[in-house]
Amino acid sequence: MTEVGIIGAGGLTGKELLKILNKHSNILPVHITSNQFAGKKVKEVFPDLDLNKIGDLKFSHHEDKIPDKIPLFLATPNKESMELVYQFYKKEKRIVIDLSGSYRIDDLNIFQKVYGFKHQYPDIISEKVYGLTEIYREQIRKASLVANPGCYPTSILIPLYYFKDNLKYADNIIIDSKSGVSGAGGRVEDAGFSFQNIYENFRAYKILKHQHEPEIFQYLNNYSGFKNNLIFTPHLLPVFRGILSTIVIIWQKENQINDEEIYQKINQHIQNEPFVRLFKNPEEIELKNVQNTNYCDFSFRTRENTTIIISAIDNLMKGAAGQAIQNLNLILNYKEEEGLK
Amino acid sequence: MTEVGIIGAGGLTGKELLKILNKHSNILPVHITSNQFAGKKVKEVFPDLDLNKIGDLKFSHHEDKIPDKIPLFLATPNKESMELVYQFYKKEKRIVIDLSGSYRIDDLNIFQKVYGFKHQYPDIISEKVYGLTEIYREQIRKASLVANPGCYPTSILIPLYYFKDNLKYADNIIIDSKSGVSGAGGRVEDAGFSFQNIYENFRAYKILKHQHEPEIFQYLNNYSGFKNNLIFTPHLLPVFRGILSTIVIIWQKENQINDEEIYQKINQHIQNEPFVRLFKNPEEIELKNVQNTNYCDFSFRTRENTTIIISAIDNLMKGAAGQAIQNLNLILNYKEEEGLK
Amino acid sequence: MTEVGIIGAGGLTGKELLKILNKHSNILPVHITSNQFAGKKVKEVFPDLDLNKIGDLKFSHHEDKIPDKIPLFLATPNKESMELVYQFYKKEKRIVIDLSGSYRIDDLNIFQKVYGFKHQYPDIISEKVYGLTEIYREQIRKASLVANPGCYPTSILIPLYYFKDNLKYADNIIIDSKSGVSGAGGRVEDAGFSFQNIYENFRAYKILKHQHEPEIFQYLNNYSGFKNNLIFTPHLLPVFRGILSTIVIIWQKENQINDEEIYQKINQHIQNEPFVRLFKNPEEIELKNVQNTNYCDFSFRTRENTTIIISAIDNLMKGAAGQAIQNLNLILNYKEEEGLK
Amino acid sequence: MTEVGIIGAGGLTGKELLKILNKHSNILPVHITSNQFAGKKVKEVFPDLDLNKIGDLKFSHHEDKIPDKIPLFLATPNKESMELVYQFYKKEKRIVIDLSGSYRIDDLNIFQKVYGFKHQYPDIISEKVYGLTEIYREQIRKASLVANPGCYPTSILIPLYYFKDNLKYADNIIIDSKSGVSGAGGRVEDAGFSFQNIYENFRAYKILKHQHEPEIFQYLNNYSGFKNNLIFTPHLLPVFRGILSTIVIIWQKENQINDEEIYQKINQHIQNEPFVRLFKNPEEIELKNVQNTNYCDFSFRTRENTTIIISAIDNLMKGAAGQAIQNLNLILNYKEEEGLK
Repeated sequence: MTEVGIIGAGGLTGKELLKILNKHSNILPVHITSNQFAGKKVKEVFPDLDLNKIGDLKFSHHEDKIPDKIPLFLATPNKESMELVYQFYKKEKRIVIDLSGSYRIDDLNIFQKVYGFKHQYPDIISEKVYGLTEIYREQIRKASLVANPGCYPTSILIPLYYFKDNLKYADNIIIDSKSGVSGAGGRVEDAGFSFQNIYENFRAYKILKHQHEPEIFQYLNNYSGFKNNLIFTPHLLPVFRGILSTIVIIWQKENQINDEEIYQKINQHIQNEPFVRLFKNPEEIELKNVQNTNYCDFSFRTRENTTIIISAIDNLMKGAAGQAIQNLNLILNYKEEEGLK
Repeated sequence: MTEVGIIGAGGLTGKELLKILNKHSNILPVHITSNQFAGKKVKEVFPDLDLNKIGDLKFSHHEDKIPDKIPLFLATPNKESMELVYQFYKKEKRIVIDLSGSYRIDDLNIFQKVYGFKHQYPDIISEKVYGLTEIYREQIRKASLVANPGCYPTSILIPLYYFKDNLKYADNIIIDSKSGVSGAGGRVEDAGFSFQNIYENFRAYKILKHQHEPEIFQYLNNYSGFKNNLIFTPHLLPVFRGILSTIVIIWQKENQINDEEIYQKINQHIQNEPFVRLFKNPEEIELKNVQNTNYCDFSFRTRENTTIIISAIDNLMKGAAGQAIQNLNLILNYKEEEGLK
Repeated sequence: MTEVGIIGAGGLTGKELLKILNKHSNILPVHITSNQFAGKKVKEVFPDLDLNKIGDLKFSHHEDKIPDKIPLFLATPNKESMELVYQFYKKEKRIVIDLSGSYRIDDLNIFQKVYGFKHQYPDIISEKVYGLTEIYREQIRKASLVANPGCYPTSILIPLYYFKDNLKYADNIIIDSKSGVSGAGGRVEDAGFSFQNIYENFRAYKILKHQHEPEIFQYLNNYSGFKNNLIFTPHLLPVFRGILSTIVIIWQKENQINDEEIYQKINQHIQNEPFVRLFKNPEEIELKNVQNTNYCDFSFRTRENTTIIISAIDNLMKGAAGQAIQNLNLILNYKEEEGLK
Repeated sequence: MTEVGIIGAGGLTGKELLKILNKHSNILPVHITSNQFAGKKVKEVFPDLDLNKIGDLKFSHHEDKIPDKIPLFLATPNKESMELVYQFYKKEKRIVIDLSGSYRIDDLNIFQKVYGFKHQYPDIISEKVYGLTEIYREQIRKASLVANPGCYPTSILIPLYYFKDNLKYADNIIIDSKSGVSGAGGRVEDAGFSFQNIYENFRAYKILKHQHEPEIFQYLNNYSGFKNNLIFTPHLLPVFRGILSTIVIIWQKENQINDEEIYQKINQHIQNEPFVRLFKNPEEIELKNVQNTNYCDFSFRTRENTTIIISAIDNLMKGAAGQAIQNLNLILNYKEEEGLK
């Protein structure tokens, strides 16, 4: 049993980490922080979680002493995470899984542009491993600092990975993603996330300005060499959980892809992947199949020079807490799917 | 006061026609058909409509005699509409507004492919006017047969119209549309439209196979000359009313568009349009602003060689019944917005 | 055309008043206040309202001078309304329709207990007329100060009125009401009204402590003499509009009520009521039949010594703005349903 | 490991049984039937369930041979269950947990009236144990035939049990229950359960006619001697899971109950109950705290001669499948909460 801590455990991602770890056979949270809830028990703060193992664990203040050496999940805002990674990973030499966006982007100018502040520890950036488990599994096993991927990038980079040999022939990749409110970053006090403004409504946001677009581009380029036009548009669905992405690839010429062949190839490729599911028809991909699971479901269809991929994940699970635990399982040499199935 | 009839008045579109005409100063429905509801009063069938004028009007059987010469709205399925247009427009010389898809597509092969049956009256097709009011207004004034546009095409063809001079420089137009259940054609008895399968869920459907794609292409080509790649993907939202379309234009080269200039130009262009609203930021476009109205709202943003337009309509109003009445207002020489504001 | 003002026009009730008055033939809002929106046009603040007549009207500050003598709607919080009634009605001799709870309760001790502050103008309380139109119509015609009823009381006092001759034989009246979020008084910034806390959720609130319980009791006693046990429990539905009340009457003995007889009697009684609808079966009463209308729908069923009434209204219409305008129509001698059908 | 079967495993209750048993350490489903899905694997039929253990189990036809002696869950309609209990329990001597209503009611006349058919095996009725675990735990341990309680009765009989010593002083118990669609018995093909008819809507149903009212009365009388007036009204919420019941007790006189005293007494009483949670304030009871759990949450408040209890359960868990497995755990001498926490 490995003891761990969660910094920022009072938010949606922290809550999801607690929910998963409650049924994990090998990892036990012993130190969880939230200034808002300090002193309260987990079962008091989250009566909707059915917690037999860790219900009596109490929240600590952020300033309270953390047990030496235990690995930490950082479910903190970007700027805080930037500082905490320096302290916990660099100075205290802990294993750190950072769920924020602060160490994902390599280009400092792009980072500053999309996150709105200058990175203070550029040297550490190159030491992180990007925690997209299916793609960087071997590097993650040996990592001490994992930059856990954004929810939108996870839903996009996983399915595109299986087309990586062809992506050098793609001119444009146009991605239209739709997320439930838990994936869109709003606080319950924001009027924009009130029932009145979400229910029976739908809208796009941060058009051509979302911080996940350069993240997608960087890792897509990294694994496939793609360097052409990539467009990402996020939308806000009137549901609580789940992201569905519609990914349109425009190939340089027709017949770049034979759907049947590539289906067989991918099917073979993912045979041992515990959390990737390929479906025959893209109409079968829907949020309800992935909600509260760690799966990434996808399927695709090609016509002439266009391939459309539909993918879906649960933004709090595979898009955040689930993948974070999947990564720590690898680092600690536990079964990859422990706690997640 | 002009008396009119509605064939197929018991469905969602027929109900919306009744709701609008109840407050119309110049058009009065006197003959409405529905085999399911024949003999019942409108106010009994639709207690949720607040009908002071036509609440006591009774539904007739489809076989019942229709008053001579009155104009007719056809809110009937595609195959029925194909036959009824022949009878009511061709033989009986009535004014007909057909809300089905049966006379929109000019190419007979494409028609048969997407609608699944051979067109029996190809000669009539060329006599119709496509009822996209803002674009074909002058032709509609003189028309006797109007093929009222599909809901998705309306949300897409209106905003793109204001970019028509530039569309010859577009390589790809990628459209991702999301519709509430009332725009997706399901019947209340379909398990796919049960609460259980829609609520807290989201999915794409008819991927690369939707009958509205060739309709969009035909009229886009007609008014702009665009003939390159067009991709349309419809999705099903867990809401009742409204369509939001995300339209990505990939230009042949950068700087094809200056947002500020084109904003001013469009603003000028639509000054007298009663139902088109241009917004400064595409993030302002949302379903709740157009639900239960006849508006088409849109806005856009450009980066390098890409322009993203976001548009929204109410699928039952501007996307069906509202536009149908807007068109009949024009034909009968009434004020275009009568009954619609 | 009578010019009127709306104090506090930026909230949900103010918005509903604007929506109705936009299509009213005889009443025109010329002065509307909201510190938050001062200087902005109505159509900018509420793009989801389709306003042809008053879209360009601008919001004023609360301090701005109000045209002399025009009648005013007060859509202000309780304490503000208490003061404003003194100023506008008592000092400036205007006609005032107060939509708050500040002048509804006659008993000063009860008032202080449920509203949490001492009433400063007890003398004015007895000058108000309670604006439950169907019951106090003749008094309202002659009123200058109308205390417009609460939304829950409206849904309860209207149907019970038609049983008033029997209510002296009732021992207990147990009312279980369920309201959409717009009827429950929350602001969009309250975490309790966030999408996350309302959607796929349901709860009761203010149990045995809601300020509408004494309001219901006072007027029920006033029109029927009922003085026994009355219990009211409000609940919060995951919908936006509408209240459904389940009213259980326990009679002193069996056979107090013959459903068929009383149905005929009520049917007769409401024949000329423009906004009361009686249904045969209580299962037919549902929110969707009254949303966006000024109707109060109800039905009932009796078994032995128990009668269950189910009623429904739209809380923003008949439960607030609609009834307020219905009352002003009466005072100004316009057609009672003008603007409301 | 005990092998079991599920008859009628293709519906919502069957699906929930499969979901729970997938993570049960001691009970393994080996034979599951559904004519609709016969031949298919569980993971194909329910891709939204994350099934590691039983995903490859195939559905059988109802006629297929069932392994000898294994205990069976009956998730079948009332009439079928009546027959199957005779066959499986009486003739084949199996342990049977019947989730239908067919063996719950002792009075044959009442049974016929509320279920609409005559009971064919009256002798068996007296052999069943009613499976309300918290109340009949010791009898259940020794039972071979369990009539698993209805979802509404579970939400009502559990909290009332802790008031049983006082209920002889109650005159009236008025219960207003609200259920998500999964508890209201509709099939996805019923128009009444379409998204269009549930969403942004609310209504009561089966008023004074619901089959669960006599079930509640019978067992309430059984454990407390209550024999006065009991009224139960069910309502349909626009959510998928969960029941919240508002239970109003009218005592014969005031001061029958001291809230603080009874709170302490109940708190003591439930100390070892794994699935009963008492809250301080009835406003804290909400659906989201019990969804996807086996808990029954409740709280209460008294004023003069009235006590209001608010309770909540998940209708598919504690209201059906969860409680069924809790009962089989008792019979098989496994830990009561196995598979349920």
